[in-house]
Amino acid sequence: MSGVPSGLWQNLIALQVYGANTNVGKTVFSTLLGAHFVRRAGKRKWSLHYIKPVSTGPIEDADDSYVKRHVEGASVTTLFQFKEPVSPHIAVRGANFVPTDDYLVRRVHAKIKKDAGKLSWERHMGLTIVETAGGVLSPGPSGAPQADIFRPMRLPVILVGDHRLGGIASTISAAESLTLRGYDISAVICFDDKGKYENSDYLLKYFGNMDIPAFTIPWIPQLEGYTQEQERATMREYYERQSLTDGMYKLADFIVQRHTERLTTMNKLASRTRKTIWHPFTQHKTIANTDDILVWDSAYGDYFQARHTPTSLKGIKEEDAAGKLLLYPAFDGSASWWTQGLGHGNPRLSLAAAYAAGRYGHVMFAGATHEPAVILAETLLKGTDNPRLAKCFYTDDGSTAAEVGIKMALRATCKRYDWDGSKENIEILGLKGSYHGDTIGAMDASEPNVYNEKVDWYRGRGYWFDFPTVKMKSGEWMVEPPKGMAKELGAPEFFTHLDDVFDFDARGPGQGRRWWLYEQYIKERLDILVKRQGRRFGALVMEPILLGAGGMLFVDPLFQRKLVEVVRAYQFSAQEVIPPSDPLHWTGVPVLFDEVFTGLNRLGHFTPSSLLAVHPDISIHAKLLTGGLLPLSVTLASKAIFNAFLSPSKSDALLHGHSYTAHPIGCHVANTSLKEMEVLKNGFAWKSFRRKWRRESGHRGGHVVKRWSMRGRLNVDDGAKTWSMWGKPLVVWLSYHTAVDHVVAIGSVLAVALKDEEGSAAGLRDALLNDRSYTEVSVHSRVLGNVLYLMASLTTLPKDLDAVGDALKQKLDSVSGITRGQRNNRKHVQDITWMKYAE
Amino acid sequence: MSGVPSGLWQNLIALQVYGANTNVGKTVFSTLLGAHFVRRAGKRKWSLHYIKPVSTGPIEDADDSYVKRHVEGASVTTLFQFKEPVSPHIAVRGANFVPTDDYLVRRVHAKIKKDAGKLSWERHMGLTIVETAGGVLSPGPSGAPQADIFRPMRLPVILVGDHRLGGIASTISAAESLTLRGYDISAVICFDDKGKYENSDYLLKYFGNMDIPAFTIPWIPQLEGYTQEQERATMREYYERQSLTDGMYKLADFIVQRHTERLTTMNKLASRTRKTIWHPFTQHKTIANTDDILVWDSAYGDYFQARHTPTSLKGIKEEDAAGKLLLYPAFDGSASWWTQGLGHGNPRLSLAAAYAAGRYGHVMFAGATHEPAVILAETLLKGTDNPRLAKCFYTDDGSTAAEVGIKMALRATCKRYDWDGSKENIEILGLKGSYHGDTIGAMDASEPNVYNEKVDWYRGRGYWFDFPTVKMKSGEWMVEPPKGMAKELGAPEFFTHLDDVFDFDARGPGQGRRWWLYEQYIKERLDILVKRQGRRFGALVMEPILLGAGGMLFVDPLFQRKLVEVVRAYQFSAQEVIPPSDPLHWTGVPVLFDEVFTGLNRLGHFTPSSLLAVHPDISIHAKLLTGGLLPLSVTLASKAIFNAFLSPSKSDALLHGHSYTAHPIGCHVANTSLKEMEVLKNGFAWKSFRRKWRRESGHRGGHVVKRWSMRGRLNVDDGAKTWSMWGKPLVVWLSYHTAVDHVVAIGSVLAVALKDEEGSAAGLRDALLNDRSYTEVSVHSRVLGNVLYLMASLTTLPKDLDAVGDALKQKLDSVSGITRGQRNNRKHVQDITWMKYAE
Repeated sequence: MSGVPSGLWQNLIALQVYGANTNVGKTVFSTLLGAHFVRRAGKRKWSLHYIKPVSTGPIEDADDSYVKRHVEGASVTTLFQFKEPVSPHIAVRGANFVPTDDYLVRRVHAKIKKDAGKLSWERHMGLTIVETAGGVLSPGPSGAPQADIFRPMRLPVILVGDHRLGGIASTISAAESLTLRGYDISAVICFDDKGKYENSDYLLKYFGNMDIPAFTIPWIPQLEGYTQEQERATMREYYERQSLTDGMYKLADFIVQRHTERLTTMNKLASRTRKTIWHPFTQHKTIANTDDILVWDSAYGDYFQARHTPTSLKGIKEEDAAGKLLLYPAFDGSASWWTQGLGHGNPRLSLAAAYAAGRYGHVMFAGATHEPAVILAETLLKGTDNPRLAKCFYTDDGSTAAEVGIKMALRATCKRYDWDGSKENIEILGLKGSYHGDTIGAMDASEPNVYNEKVDWYRGRGYWFDFPTVKMKSGEWMVEPPKGMAKELGAPEFFTHLDDVFDFDARGPGQGRRWWLYEQYIKERLDILVKRQGRRFGALVMEPILLGAGGMLFVDPLFQRKLVEVVRAYQFSAQEVIPPSDPLHWTGVPVLFDEVFTGLNRLGHFTPSSLLAVHPDISIHAKLLTGGLLPLSVTLASKAIFNAFLSPSKSDALLHGHSYTAHPIGCHVANTSLKEMEVLKNGFAWKSFRRKWRRESGHRGGHVVKRWSMRGRLNVDDGAKTWSMWGKPLVVWLSYHTAVDHVVAIGSVLAVALKDEEGSAAGLRDALLNDRSYTEVSVHSRVLGNVLYLMASLTTLPKDLDAVGDALKQKLDSVSGITRGQRNNRKHVQDITWMKYAE
Repeated sequence: MSGVPSGLWQNLIALQVYGANTNVGKTVFSTLLGAHFVRRAGKRKWSLHYIKPVSTGPIEDADDSYVKRHVEGASVTTLFQFKEPVSPHIAVRGANFVPTDDYLVRRVHAKIKKDAGKLSWERHMGLTIVETAGGVLSPGPSGAPQADIFRPMRLPVILVGDHRLGGIASTISAAESLTLRGYDISAVICFDDKGKYENSDYLLKYFGNMDIPAFTIPWIPQLEGYTQEQERATMREYYERQSLTDGMYKLADFIVQRHTERLTTMNKLASRTRKTIWHPFTQHKTIANTDDILVWDSAYGDYFQARHTPTSLKGIKEEDAAGKLLLYPAFDGSASWWTQGLGHGNPRLSLAAAYAAGRYGHVMFAGATHEPAVILAETLLKGTDNPRLAKCFYTDDGSTAAEVGIKMALRATCKRYDWDGSKENIEILGLKGSYHGDTIGAMDASEPNVYNEKVDWYRGRGYWFDFPTVKMKSGEWMVEPPKGMAKELGAPEFFTHLDDVFDFDARGPGQGRRWWLYEQYIKERLDILVKRQGRRFGALVMEPILLGAGGMLFVDPLFQRKLVEVVRAYQFSAQEVIPPSDPLHWTGVPVLFDEVFTGLNRLGHFTPSSLLAVHPDISIHAKLLTGGLLPLSVTLASKAIFNAFLSPSKSDALLHGHSYTAHPIGCHVANTSLKEMEVLKNGFAWKSFRRKWRRESGHRGGHVVKRWSMRGRLNVDDGAKTWSMWGKPLVVWLSYHTAVDHVVAIGSVLAVALKDEEGSAAGLRDALLNDRSYTEVSVHSRVLGNVLYLMASLTTLPKDLDAVGDALKQKLDSVSGITRGQRNNRKHVQDITWMKYAE
């Protein structure tokens, strides 16, 4: 399933006419505007298409025939006509066919595209007016507000104001509803009531101050008591006289100008960007030309609306390119750097942001408090289900949250062991391939690598363990030690179900050697570091389960669990320190989990710690926290950590704080997002994903029970504990592919490691975005070395995932040079394997 | 001028009834609700007050008499009645008195407060219904939308839905307009139209999904063709029969429950905060009791709405405490950590945030672009008016922006001088008392101090210069060297006008020795550091003009200018490097200005660099960037700096990036804010501030000309270049005060350094917030050591500044033990001095 393209054509202006209310004169305005363009003098001839997506009421009164009658040569279309003169959501009752929102908007788009394809830019211009029914938020056939239904196309809006008493309020409110859904209002139209309520005077001024131009239109003639003939004659005269006035020329010129400006903006944005923008993580030398910069016009749901470039138009079907459609939808496959959870342009989150902005703006948080911050802290502390965590510290992003977490842990350790961190080098323990952000403190917590090696103030302060990884190869899950470390960490282990990898009891001391090997290895390492080399460590800092920036490395959960256990039991200070009696107190060194990428449902659970059944002393979260809207982060800490900063002296406090600490917008949006995510997680869609994975994995009833849960409560109660939205068949298919080394899939994340390191992942990425042959959907993705990964939101539909999965398969074959014949042959073999496997 | 208190009383429920449109049955609903409460069974007796702030139309049809007629014992008030049955903004034409928005809302508040004062909690409850005219955004007498006029009180809203065709749309839009202004909608009411349009069915479901409860109310009887008598009888019967139904009990119980919940939230929020929140920059040990935590219910304009505590109620007038008003307005004197510029709850910024959220959400910025980010980059690069700056890098806060700036500068230096920053210690040059943020890299750029001394990974990497400061003492501006450094930096210098301190020509080589002294001092220092000690420096990093966190230190601008000049001419590398021929290229080491606090109009100019007439190579901005709404920051850099990262290898790029890099909400809100600030800066209010300061400073016409402008263009063309919103008389008065050491005032910043270091500033701060004796306004402020500072927004009105200034004077006397007699005596002396001075 591809997204609907946003409606911007080179040679056709498509407008959506909304009314501030019902009966405000939308159709009269549409007719007048249409009549103007058709009759207008100029080099180019205009053709008019009037589209009424949904119409209710008797067919003889329909708006389309009205427009046709008064505008010579106009094409008119009504897509769905329902007889009863009520709101469409009521009128559809008993109808044979009720269009879904998606179907409706696609049909409208197809109609306009066809119009556009017929025009030649040199001689013609097209105007298509899409007129909605009722007010801005009047329900469509499905019951959803119309402004939501048509949002994917995001046509420029002309809002017809309400001229009646109370119409000032309803017009401004309607404009606000459109604005918060991301529409651009090209113009507001007010019928001039000749001084009765003076709405137009007020609205012209009000919208002028908001940079939205407003225009007055001559009053509709009085028609009461007229016969049909008289009425038609009067209106004919009205349209004839009024459609070519100076005022109408002004309005129409303005509409054309806005369209031209939008085209110019789209066409120049990449070069303007090139001139002024320094992109993150980008070697600007390698951006060969301006078209390499993707231009987003907007985004909705899972899709960006990207500007077509010569590259993106390559391979596109002839009729799609016709009419010069300027934008195309691209699936946001990196979830915009792992942030998205509830879809772009989610009106609920927009409204939540606006509410908090309206209630507070930003308010000082030092020495003070506000409700959204407290609710969020409580929700997170409860949600993590970790009895150790008691306090919430707010910052702005993952990197600052990591800095705070590290400051917390080091202080606690130095205080207990009486070390002086300002003089001695206190290090951290971690994993190779870790990443905690780009500020110096966060960088110092990762081992030297390509990201930090050229940063002048970077000083890696720690020791980073090698570790075994989990991957699927040829349909089988395996735990593999790093190269050449089979002696220390054991030979590869194989598992039928991913859940079995997490079955710590089965893999534990009673049943197997793996557990013992890990413990020995970690202890020996620590002895060398601490006892032999005399190094001092202040924290264990790691990303649970998936090391994202390191290349989507799936750490063997047993190793991570063991690492925590050994560290917590280890004696890091030469002098004996009496261990605290409180079981919630940290021992060894504090354990900090960086859950910025993996937390908050990314892997299918509120926290990945729960999958490890480990309770960190410090846990940091960001990214999905606001559902993907704006920056906010938290560092959650235990009471013991908090207490390390208590003293009568201010200088002992955690003297850290950012200007917008706990900004109410972020906190309230986060509260709204977390609530929404909780609903979705327990809703039908996610339950189906879980059940499907379970079924496809051949789990038997009761195979996965809660025996490894430490606190007896886990949210998932149906199907597998570990599962992937991407579906087992796709994951298995990929893992068999000749070009693929291995696959990783958990929760919403799918990562494909390709065999050939040199640019093959980048080639696949480019094909997914730009090569339309045989694929329905364009996919924007990111690569990390030889790994291409994809990510979904909690709101992504199975049909969209299927389309993206199909595209991935097709492009993988295509970039690996696999022919159709080979594909068919292989398919047969794989089907057999798959059936065997799924048994 | 104090803010209007938000409307929350212990023993009285005040509700605002808004209609989704005009004629939707607001008054019928208000009457029904009133009738219910008056007649309702229960322990406590309810009294009803119905307030119509503004009514239009014939007095005999007025809503208040209607309510009085149908609800026994109800008090009714109409504050303003205008005869013509049109919108209030039209009806007021020709009226003798047109209430301002402020007057109107204060009158309503006073009325309710009086009601509340009469009740006894044990026996009575009060219900006050404030019914607006028309729809939610219908204009009030001033022409402003009503929802904006009444926003300061932020009463819980009952929204009466529109039962007519199109009413679904208008009701939801009205609710959205209220929401984005920060209102809480307690309930939506829908008249049950018995299946005609079924609006109530739809709205109940829709609002239910939004967590806003909706209720149906029985349909209003048919009254057409009735005589007045019949009509009254019918309605009497309707109210009698319908006011005590189960449905009405349910609604009324819900209203009471919501009120109780809000009280509970307000009362428990501080203790909930104490349980879960780890505050920034806070020694939690010193928070003696829960009431020390300020609870913000909301904020609007310059004022917080704070929860009353036993402390804040002390000294309050009897009648103010009556009725247990739970909230009080406190002037946001720290501009919420220096972030505020356009007032809290600014509806324009809320709408801007919502628009960008609706259009984009967050979208991936690596390798891609969007319009708001490009516009913002262009606006900033143009606004800074610095020909060197060419590129904009986005991050989340001042600290991350500083980290990026430092990374940029160090790389450029190391590349040119062929140093290896990963092995050698490359330091920065700066000023003592500097502050650049709390992440490790930003901390390392500040000298060891109380903020960083206990941070384990902090390693001060630099040399920080002593410098002379600017201050006003006893009515005179002086430039003072640090203690014991008069030999190196010269004896104190005195100036009549602050502008003279910035008159670099007059203070330059031709006329005085100061310039030469500074140059010698800096050169000698550098020779010791570089030549004798062999240290390597990669950047000059400083805050122009005001060092905020260091204690509002006002650096002698001549010193800062000189420092830049000397550094740019100095040879930092032993090996000769051919200086670049491009005059926009950096020399010596790159100059980084941290303008996070001082930039974007905080000091009255777009950038403080323009006051210094210095063009930094790197400039960082945050705080005011979004007008005070949410975090966003930029690091602006020169082309030469940008070029230092170009190479064919990705590892040479600036590998820095945060998830929400250039988030569209932040960028679009910033664009909206900067535009708005530009309008305000050139508007009447700021012009008056400038002219007033100039007049009060006794400037002669043409005294300050543009002779020190390097590029011939400066925005300020009327009055002084340096000026303060706080007004000269206040600044001078404070500088004479026996308890004051000196004062600093520039732009929106006022800082008062007290003589006695031990807690006197804290005492003044507490008095400003909590001691209401003889003062009109409560002021929330922050202190830095012995310095108490205040800050205003660009939207703050002179009358509010005056009230805050008066409070400051009063409390300063009061905490310094100055009696009224002494005050009167001194006033006389000061007036004479002042007159002499102002001559």
